Amino acid sequence: MNNSESVSFLEATYQKIFPQDGSFRDKATARLEQLTMPHWALGDLMDLAVDLAGMTRSLDPPVGRKAVVVMVGDHGVTAEGVSKYPSEVTAQMVYNFVAGGAGINALAGQAGARVEVVDMGAAADFENLIKKGAIRSKKIAAGTNNIAHGPAMTRTHAVLAVEAGIEVANELSLEVDVFATGDMGIGNTTPSTAIAAALTGRPVTELTGRGTGLDDTELRRKIEIIERALDVNRPDAADAMDVLAKVGGFEIGGIAGLILGAAAQRKPVVVDGFISTAGALVALELEPFTRDYIVCAHRSVEPGHKAMQEKLGCRPLLDLNMRLGEGTGAALALNLVEAAKAVLTEVATFADAGVTGTSAK
Amino acid sequence: MNNSESVSFLEATYQKIFPQDGSFRDKATARLEQLTMPHWALGDLMDLAVDLAGMTRSLDPPVGRKAVVVMVGDHGVTAEGVSKYPSEVTAQMVYNFVAGGAGINALAGQAGARVEVVDMGAAADFENLIKKGAIRSKKIAAGTNNIAHGPAMTRTHAVLAVEAGIEVANELSLEVDVFATGDMGIGNTTPSTAIAAALTGRPVTELTGRGTGLDDTELRRKIEIIERALDVNRPDAADAMDVLAKVGGFEIGGIAGLILGAAAQRKPVVVDGFISTAGALVALELEPFTRDYIVCAHRSVEPGHKAMQEKLGCRPLLDLNMRLGEGTGAALALNLVEAAKAVLTEVATFADAGVTGTSAK
Repeated sequence: MNNSESVSFLEATYQKIFPQDGSFRDKATARLEQLTMPHWALGDLMDLAVDLAGMTRSLDPPVGRKAVVVMVGDHGVTAEGVSKYPSEVTAQMVYNFVAGGAGINALAGQAGARVEVVDMGAAADFENLIKKGAIRSKKIAAGTNNIAHGPAMTRTHAVLAVEAGIEVANELSLEVDVFATGDMGIGNTTPSTAIAAALTGRPVTELTGRGTGLDDTELRRKIEIIERALDVNRPDAADAMDVLAKVGGFEIGGIAGLILGAAAQRKPVVVDGFISTAGALVALELEPFTRDYIVCAHRSVEPGHKAMQEKLGCRPLLDLNMRLGEGTGAALALNLVEAAKAVLTEVATFADAGVTGTSAK
Repeated sequence: MNNSESVSFLEATYQKIFPQDGSFRDKATARLEQLTMPHWALGDLMDLAVDLAGMTRSLDPPVGRKAVVVMVGDHGVTAEGVSKYPSEVTAQMVYNFVAGGAGINALAGQAGARVEVVDMGAAADFENLIKKGAIRSKKIAAGTNNIAHGPAMTRTHAVLAVEAGIEVANELSLEVDVFATGDMGIGNTTPSTAIAAALTGRPVTELTGRGTGLDDTELRRKIEIIERALDVNRPDAADAMDVLAKVGGFEIGGIAGLILGAAAQRKPVVVDGFISTAGALVALELEPFTRDYIVCAHRSVEPGHKAMQEKLGCRPLLDLNMRLGEGTGAALALNLVEAAKAVLTEVATFADAGVTGTSAK
């Protein structure tokens, strides 16, 4: 795919993304207001039900087939000591996902969701896993460059990463009703924080967290590295593809693409934690209507997550002091998506049930 | 059952309630610290997993068979206009539960839990439903007396209500791994607020909320009624059975009993919202070790809920602006109980998975 085709594939995707349908939102609201309970007594679950109707243009929004897509990439900036773990853990965790032994396997299993692992740009090669069909390959390159010294990737690679994410959404389109985002990439809170700083305009010190468990000295070092990355690369906040290319990551681009692809299919996409939200911010800058298809799963322990979710304009459903990524928060939130759909479709109205009175507003 | 037998049944139950087992907590913690993820990266879910191990004395805590027990009662105080809905809605909602059309049916269904409805003291008679086995009858009386003028019930009736809740837990003991509490009773935020005021010592104005949807004038009236109930009855804060008898309700007593019964069986009991938490406070005063078996499901919109949960010493798992009761918040939290168990039992350790490094603390 050459660059001009790429632009048109992206543009074609953006052009398929429309706001939620107001008439379905209204119809869902009208029904929810007549359910046998005090007015809007299920709170955020009812707001979510209205969103599902508006996204899917249905009063019986399909939510049964769920996939957590775990986007994988490595990061040159790990050379600066920004993570407790070495880069090879990225690949080891891919094998762990395939064997079913990771956190996301347990939580996706509980939620009845499949796990799809996509190599967007790991340093390792997964030839055997790809041959067996255990993971998908959309590899752009074997890890990004070190953002402390220059851009993470070329602009062409950034475009390809976003396109690859859209392709994954498209490949799964006939099999999936609800997408959930996930990530694996040692070091990836560093580029995600840089993206957050570039796109929210908030100071790096306020946004940077301990990732997998840095101590105070290591945290100061991480802040310095992120500030240096922004200083060296000067990403253009008005151009999200530039931000992704200069201080992002392949898996973050893949997540942005997956979100765009879900929105173009008019399907809900449950966005996980800190890294996934960086991808969501990129997607939103590329096409603002994307916002209408995003469900924010949870509030991560990472301090920058709040600012990112405020920028996205969403209130997360869960707040459980989690900081794992992989899509684990999104998997938990899939239960709430199912619950919201059940409220919309399974609860009787006052008239149906012969219950006295209407819903008191 | 006469009163002296009653006391011994209660005492026998209290004597079966022990703290969580520290050695199982330690073993669970040790395993969770070795999972292929940064240290305690699943946060509150891991705390919950440790609790489940400590409650059940197992590293494979049974959580598959779940029941939401909806305790039903009516309240004489509805004569004072403390609710938007008339008392007959209590019975109408019982028929709605049996028909599967209420909020709790939808959410329990999503969570894979059964719904058990217990008539603890509705004003209506459910002879046909009881004959069909559609609900359980533990009816103490056809609604409480008006607490604005005198005690809700006799002390004997309060004891019988708590015992009935224990009996329900015992009747279900061979079929249920995890209990969840629920309530139905028009007007029952009023006695629950009175219990909260009596047992937390906080002012009624701070604790009282709009229940099913009161306006400002109605809210002021509700506060007056609750203050009058406390003034007329002078419940003894040091004697929870006195508080339950004077300003409580039959379903609240049933919930307290269900919680005590679950604790005596060493099983987790997921406590729903405002009314259920009033029941939990009573249970905790009757036998403090009960605390070790309680999972606080969610934070309700009712302003007094926070003070009650602080008194219980728990941080709720969910905060979704809900105020329905019926066990709906508890049903949602059952998914998190299952998820916590999956984390404990299904995730590989670093050693198992051949992943480099240990969990960085």
